[in-house]
Amino acid sequence: MNVFIIGIGLIGGSLARDIRKYYPEARLYGIDLDPAHLKVALELGLIDEASDYDGLSDADLVILTIPVDAMVNELPLVLEHVGEETLVLDAGSTKAEICQFVADHPKRRNYLACHPIAGTEFSGPSAALEGLFDGKTNIICEVEKTAFKLQEYGLEIFRKLGMRIRYMNPEAHDKHIAYVSHLSHISSFMLGKTVIEKEKNERDIFDMAGSGFESTVRLAKSSPAMWTPIFEQNKVNVIETLEEYIQNLQQFRQKLVDNDFQGIFKEMDDTNRIKAILDGIPLNKK
Amino acid sequence: MNVFIIGIGLIGGSLARDIRKYYPEARLYGIDLDPAHLKVALELGLIDEASDYDGLSDADLVILTIPVDAMVNELPLVLEHVGEETLVLDAGSTKAEICQFVADHPKRRNYLACHPIAGTEFSGPSAALEGLFDGKTNIICEVEKTAFKLQEYGLEIFRKLGMRIRYMNPEAHDKHIAYVSHLSHISSFMLGKTVIEKEKNERDIFDMAGSGFESTVRLAKSSPAMWTPIFEQNKVNVIETLEEYIQNLQQFRQKLVDNDFQGIFKEMDDTNRIKAILDGIPLNKK
Repeated sequence: MNVFIIGIGLIGGSLARDIRKYYPEARLYGIDLDPAHLKVALELGLIDEASDYDGLSDADLVILTIPVDAMVNELPLVLEHVGEETLVLDAGSTKAEICQFVADHPKRRNYLACHPIAGTEFSGPSAALEGLFDGKTNIICEVEKTAFKLQEYGLEIFRKLGMRIRYMNPEAHDKHIAYVSHLSHISSFMLGKTVIEKEKNERDIFDMAGSGFESTVRLAKSSPAMWTPIFEQNKVNVIETLEEYIQNLQQFRQKLVDNDFQGIFKEMDDTNRIKAILDGIPLNKK
Repeated sequence: MNVFIIGIGLIGGSLARDIRKYYPEARLYGIDLDPAHLKVALELGLIDEASDYDGLSDADLVILTIPVDAMVNELPLVLEHVGEETLVLDAGSTKAEICQFVADHPKRRNYLACHPIAGTEFSGPSAALEGLFDGKTNIICEVEKTAFKLQEYGLEIFRKLGMRIRYMNPEAHDKHIAYVSHLSHISSFMLGKTVIEKEKNERDIFDMAGSGFESTVRLAKSSPAMWTPIFEQNKVNVIETLEEYIQNLQQFRQKLVDNDFQGIFKEMDDTNRIKAILDGIPLNKK
């Protein structure tokens, strides 16, 4: 089994680790614009050798784990290079634009559109983790457009990695993921920015920070190169969620100004039911 | 050594666990409006017996871990009941109003104003943890107003618990803590609210949530009874931080609307230095 991973960072590298574990016979090839990433991936044993698009004709499986702006350009090229029986899948955080770009591609049936909801705030091959996908959700879009045999192949891999599968159309994916992922990143980045700006004038603020602050700004460590094209591709949905969020913050502020502390209590009490909701989210459990 | 804990929840109970560990000879008394909390605290061995204000005359140490609105009423009463050599300390998340309330109290010198930056999103005595304060920061305000001998006694306790001490005036405490704690809670509650509201119309959104979302909304599980009076007492500072946060979110939104993705990249890239800052925050390390 010849597996090619295009973009050997946190996600590509973590997939490599699991594929090596569950498919010990697999030979892993890495393709990356950054020679330093390939070097680290070889040193860590994530891949067996570096390759390029000319090698793709021998691939059984090709996984694209690159920023979503590069994805829309590279995916059609990759499909041109692979054989008739190669499965090509991606792990992009947006799905609508990517699916549109290959809608009429002669090899559309070789592609399975995926979004594994897994990751950390770190990036690069040295951040790759074994078991990252165990118990996590994988959203698959337009499954009916993928060849039946290749659907089966992909699902077998995800089953071995321990993933739960949800099927969704690309537009619904992009709309919903804006709420539970993209908005969290903006809220975190802007929270970090607000406190950093304040620290410029008021020293030692961070000396007072605890685990609560750490938790809410953790995502502000995320890669701008990965997240800028996500926000660009999902702009309409992201703006909508952001406006709703800002409106809720403004209403909370107004209640403070009006001394409506009964209202403040109620806002928090109503939102407390997030406890039960979070208990239902598959994080590291199956 | 007779120790009285008034309000035997997460913080009071965690302090009880550590005091029992480091002062095995200590006898621990609990005072709480909620008989269920006292019952659990007795069952868990957090306290040896339930007591009331009449017992305080025998106290060596009294710790108030109650919501900050109750604190301003109870602290003066507690000071009236204790002996001349009793140390009274609190763990309130606001300091200015509490310090004002006892500024002219005849027993002001028995009080040490503290804010240990430690906690979890859970509450009640069953949430109490041993070692919660190890390596964490304890802000002490107006230390010069506490009797020298009682300062020493308090510092010895905090040293045994593994806390690092920072001295600050109450106004600076309240201003800075609004940025690194109070604002995080509002951002988290309103993020939870935004997504819960959306889920009403768009089902299964939470099925797509991952660890990033969980991290940013974790604080929305916090107790409204604890947090409403914090926001009330620190209203002026909290409104200021909230306005700066909303302004940053609005600017980010405008950049999206204007397709200024170079600007979006820069916003995130500039905020990435939160990585280095967070590495310097004492969470569970000394």
